[in-house]
Amino acid sequence: MASSRARGEQALATGLADLGAAALLIPAGSARDPDLAPFVGAAHLRESFVIVPLGGLPVLGFLSAMERGEAAATGLALVTPEVLGVDRLVADGAEPERLWAEVLERGLAFAGLTPSRVALAGHLGAGVVQAACARLLARGWSFTPGHDLVRRFRQPKTAEELVEIRRAANGTCAAFREVARRLASAEIAPNRELILEGAPLTVGSLRRTVARVLAEHGLEQPDGNIVAPAEEGAMPHSAGTDARTLLAGESLVVDLYPKGALFADCTRTFCVGSVPEPLARAHAAVAQALALAHAEVREGVRGWSLQEKVCAELSARGYETPITHPGTTRGYVHGLGHGVGYELHEAPSFRKHAGAEGVLGEGDVLTLEPGLYDLEGGWAVRLEDLVFLGPDGPENLTPMPYTLDPRAW
Amino acid sequence: MASSRARGEQALATGLADLGAAALLIPAGSARDPDLAPFVGAAHLRESFVIVPLGGLPVLGFLSAMERGEAAATGLALVTPEVLGVDRLVADGAEPERLWAEVLERGLAFAGLTPSRVALAGHLGAGVVQAACARLLARGWSFTPGHDLVRRFRQPKTAEELVEIRRAANGTCAAFREVARRLASAEIAPNRELILEGAPLTVGSLRRTVARVLAEHGLEQPDGNIVAPAEEGAMPHSAGTDARTLLAGESLVVDLYPKGALFADCTRTFCVGSVPEPLARAHAAVAQALALAHAEVREGVRGWSLQEKVCAELSARGYETPITHPGTTRGYVHGLGHGVGYELHEAPSFRKHAGAEGVLGEGDVLTLEPGLYDLEGGWAVRLEDLVFLGPDGPENLTPMPYTLDPRAW
Repeated sequence: MASSRARGEQALATGLADLGAAALLIPAGSARDPDLAPFVGAAHLRESFVIVPLGGLPVLGFLSAMERGEAAATGLALVTPEVLGVDRLVADGAEPERLWAEVLERGLAFAGLTPSRVALAGHLGAGVVQAACARLLARGWSFTPGHDLVRRFRQPKTAEELVEIRRAANGTCAAFREVARRLASAEIAPNRELILEGAPLTVGSLRRTVARVLAEHGLEQPDGNIVAPAEEGAMPHSAGTDARTLLAGESLVVDLYPKGALFADCTRTFCVGSVPEPLARAHAAVAQALALAHAEVREGVRGWSLQEKVCAELSARGYETPITHPGTTRGYVHGLGHGVGYELHEAPSFRKHAGAEGVLGEGDVLTLEPGLYDLEGGWAVRLEDLVFLGPDGPENLTPMPYTLDPRAW
Repeated sequence: MASSRARGEQALATGLADLGAAALLIPAGSARDPDLAPFVGAAHLRESFVIVPLGGLPVLGFLSAMERGEAAATGLALVTPEVLGVDRLVADGAEPERLWAEVLERGLAFAGLTPSRVALAGHLGAGVVQAACARLLARGWSFTPGHDLVRRFRQPKTAEELVEIRRAANGTCAAFREVARRLASAEIAPNRELILEGAPLTVGSLRRTVARVLAEHGLEQPDGNIVAPAEEGAMPHSAGTDARTLLAGESLVVDLYPKGALFADCTRTFCVGSVPEPLARAHAAVAQALALAHAEVREGVRGWSLQEKVCAELSARGYETPITHPGTTRGYVHGLGHGVGYELHEAPSFRKHAGAEGVLGEGDVLTLEPGLYDLEGGWAVRLEDLVFLGPDGPENLTPMPYTLDPRAW
């Protein structure tokens, strides 16, 4: 089996040919850009770009001479600020769109290209992109969106990327264990409030605990997190209200998706004290659905076919699902999972009408996350694991208890 | 004096008229976008856009019906996913560039506009922007970059924005105090290594301390930080090597720029143990330059004129500066400061050839950060404060000691 990167490169070459594009062009404001990062690794670069000519090797252009060392460490062919004429453009007072147009055109020429059709990915200010491309169009270049190409390129994770995802997953697990420890240590007041260290235990306090543990693991939360009690957990768009005090007997959905160089993603649901019957029943159903998904997930399977199986399982237990009740906001209301990497949501896809990116492949990292929701009943359950499809089969990167009771963790 | 927002709105209206644009259009992948955030505040929105017609009120468009409540809380006029026809476009399998083109055109019509010239800001994937704008060009719309307009709009900070910057500055100060405490608690081994709690004190360990304290204050570091000892501090692009053990008698530049909803930015330089003479002399010079800048900073002054005064002060003490030695990499090698807000570097500008954004104004938040660097000598000093130009004059948002000796903190 070819390496992950070789398979990514093959997907990229095929995709470029299908689009009739002579190259992939990725300008970005920083090397943390999710389209640029897979090509440049951990380099600290600000404004920079990568060009991948069809059938050729990537070229890295960078705009600050101070970043020479960082750029060289990528091992890529370099087109330097001197070759790009950055100093003269800055001295001329070139506005950003003119600077980018000139620099990209010189980079494309350096990569051996003459005006032709180019697939465009990366991220810059919208006004700069539009105006820079207008200048290049006037000189004979044309463009087609290239983001999907990059998603396919980076879908199978490299060994280095997997190390980073494992690091993020390990920090995530540490944060969950600390959340469970705090919940397990809380006392239940007569009014059902959870009390820890003499004070009501709030959503905000758990969120600070999570942030501290993740920070100690070198992780941040660029997309936030969800710490959502009771009915807040049943509202798909609620992240949970900081000021709210947690109560015994209510569900608490904790969904963490921190990032180091790449993301991890994991959800557990807790309930301190005696568990209401509908919540217990839903938890058992979700745990069974997740076990089913774990048993069925493998290379070559369509994400959608896993969703169908999970829906059938939950439907058989009497819950509404997106297949039995399209558009439902009660029961199982979302997709089964998504790829995870430089972006929180990327390929593979679990959608019904997904194309090639709807087939799980070796090297993919993805979530499995069945859930059940009842806004009127005021409860929610979601259990989510992060899975790596390795050469020896699937591996759960978030191996932790699923139980509602934090004292059983 | 008009409120900050009223002055921002005036700058925006003037700027639109100068560009011959009928509106400002800001599409973004999330409400955290630095161009969109000043209009929508703390709303949790994913794909969304704001349109500000010349002489009219802003309109907010959002693409997910689940975000109705978040959108309504902004108080802006709303154009909903139903009006935008999002469901039908998704059902049709519209690719992102077609979806955005259709949605933006409906939003522009809702805001009362017919095909005309529009200033474009915000951030989306470059391939999506180029292709969506190409569709709109074909229907009679035209575009001009609008990012500078937004920078001028958000330059004077509102009361709510200042609260957020203060919060970030307070967390930054807490992190510095903890860094100083750890450095002050370290023992000096015979080989000059700093030893804390039985282990060598490393750059990486200080960085974990910083991350933990910032996390406890609800802050993250999307752009990283600088913890750079000795000659690493003298290399403008070095963030400092985690594995490196700190030594007595060497300089340590700590530059923190965390973000809550908005950024803060502050630098201190430490030296544990006896201070080498060139470092002591440079520190005194930088402290004097910073005091000079604090004494001179006020509304109506050009940033560049402050840079000239600081250069004159440092030059008189025998140091090279960008004015006496253009392009120097030794002595004072950079600008005096920059505005801080939704982006780490924004208006006002301290550059020589800056236009209106080169004049400091009431409501601005900016850094003052003189420094001296000697790569051969293996040391660096930078002292940076964050300053708010309030109605009663400048206020230092990072009031902390400047001394090299952490035991004196």
